[in-house]
Amino acid sequence: LDDIVAAARRLAGRALVTPLLHDPGLDAQLGGTLYVKAEALQRTGSFKFRGACNRIAQLTDAERAGGVVAHSSGNHAQAVAAAAAEAGVAATIVMPSDSAAAYKTARTRALGATVVGYDRQTEDRAATAEAIARRTGATLVPPFDDPAIVAGQGTVGLEIANQCAAIGRLPDIVLAPCSGGGLVAGVATALRAKAPACAVHSVEPEGYDDTARSLAADERLANRGYPPTLCDALQSARPGALTFSINRELLSGGLVVTDEEVRAAMRLAAQTFKLVLEPGGAAALAALLARRIELGGRTAVVVASGGNIAPEAYARLIA
Amino acid sequence: LDDIVAAARRLAGRALVTPLLHDPGLDAQLGGTLYVKAEALQRTGSFKFRGACNRIAQLTDAERAGGVVAHSSGNHAQAVAAAAAEAGVAATIVMPSDSAAAYKTARTRALGATVVGYDRQTEDRAATAEAIARRTGATLVPPFDDPAIVAGQGTVGLEIANQCAAIGRLPDIVLAPCSGGGLVAGVATALRAKAPACAVHSVEPEGYDDTARSLAADERLANRGYPPTLCDALQSARPGALTFSINRELLSGGLVVTDEEVRAAMRLAAQTFKLVLEPGGAAALAALLARRIELGGRTAVVVASGGNIAPEAYARLIA
Repeated sequence: LDDIVAAARRLAGRALVTPLLHDPGLDAQLGGTLYVKAEALQRTGSFKFRGACNRIAQLTDAERAGGVVAHSSGNHAQAVAAAAAEAGVAATIVMPSDSAAAYKTARTRALGATVVGYDRQTEDRAATAEAIARRTGATLVPPFDDPAIVAGQGTVGLEIANQCAAIGRLPDIVLAPCSGGGLVAGVATALRAKAPACAVHSVEPEGYDDTARSLAADERLANRGYPPTLCDALQSARPGALTFSINRELLSGGLVVTDEEVRAAMRLAAQTFKLVLEPGGAAALAALLARRIELGGRTAVVVASGGNIAPEAYARLIA
Repeated sequence: LDDIVAAARRLAGRALVTPLLHDPGLDAQLGGTLYVKAEALQRTGSFKFRGACNRIAQLTDAERAGGVVAHSSGNHAQAVAAAAAEAGVAATIVMPSDSAAAYKTARTRALGATVVGYDRQTEDRAATAEAIARRTGATLVPPFDDPAIVAGQGTVGLEIANQCAAIGRLPDIVLAPCSGGGLVAGVATALRAKAPACAVHSVEPEGYDDTARSLAADERLANRGYPPTLCDALQSARPGALTFSINRELLSGGLVVTDEEVRAAMRLAAQTFKLVLEPGGAAALAALLARRIELGGRTAVVVASGGNIAPEAYARLIA
């Protein structure tokens, strides 16, 4: 918690304190109280800006001079690029070279970063990034398996606890999308301290349910292959070592959603909350709407974690 | 200002304090600093909830028992319906019966209000609502030309001033969409007190530039006919008497935008700010993007005033 509070201090004035959105009509349908933590509104369009900013703010002068390197399917890429640019630090990002990533790749380049492509099916992006770090002396900014990254993402949980306390309604349930597990680990850490009775669940897309299965087995299990999914932001191969060590202690379980459920959640987010969500960013909302967990009069917060999607693809998915 | 501060107190815990969104990349393109006041995230999807809530909170017990009646093309309708439902007051709303209004009509009914249709081309909706008020004893909640409504909408301006002061950057320019002029009158009143050097402009769609022309002529002028426009929320016939008496004193002028400029602003709002905006809600952003006013290193806030649009129409406009 101390690390998360320190991260919140570093992020003050840089990251947005994103609002909790609420719709009484939806509450009536769901039989409880739902708040949406609108993290798609965050700088660079996802929560990833928090962790990247927190990590880059702690670079030494020597590390700043050497620049940073990261690997990402897109949201961490934009976050590192923006946080590095604002700190005056050079950034190199290893990103998928396929067309699915083109939108996020273009946005990352526009933020001033150097983008190096890799093949999602055949190459190991982490190894590629590590090789660049060794060759150039740049500091690696990992997407999730790093204490400063987890603490940065944990500020989402701290804000949820503070915002809920301010309206006198601590959450019973919090759901967060999960790829490597950094967001949900940070959120669960904050809530364990601030709302100990709250049950925190990870939410993953079908085919990428490594954290759900790992939680059930109490050991780190990998996904098999790269099945198609709408949720391009949630395609990590396996839980992180650090993140899983936190999540196995703090999570109440892992939920899994289908592409159709994600799509319905994207539509509802647009109609009811006026929020553009990318598929991965709508996963937690999807789990609640699909009743993977029943509200039963309780109060839930779902993290709407990102909104980076090309307008054409978005228009197709919500039409 | 006292009325606006009192309204803010009434709205606390009911209306959302909407965030100011910011993107440094866009600032670089525009040559200044731009904040988007994300009022589409407001309860019922537009700023109108503020005025409706402020008016209904001041009903006497006898007035509450008689219910309220309002006329609206859509956003004021949903706002009055929701504010009335939460206050336990019956609401009747006079709304256009054409297909363009179907989405907003359905949402208003879902909020528990009784909807009465009228013909946008041939009937006077204000007269229809007044007749209902006389017949049933219900209290009229006007869309803009009412001190409590203007004060409620003015809380948008108060929040802008407070949020900008908190980041040490008072705005030089504020742009707000304008139909009858209640929003921009309230915003200008708050800013006159809190940021006296700030220039406030109304923004209207082509064909509905009654406030721009009235400001130039220094007298209330009406629009001619009902030309087609994407901005269904900004189709008032003429400036209000109260609102124009404020706006002629406080506004620096009126800007006008085209449908194509509005559409480009809707796309940018989705891509950069992850915000679903309806055409009228994007008008102020459109004016800045189309350089109807040049930033020239200054700081501007545009009010993104609403996001109520059917997903199919929205998908078509941003694709």
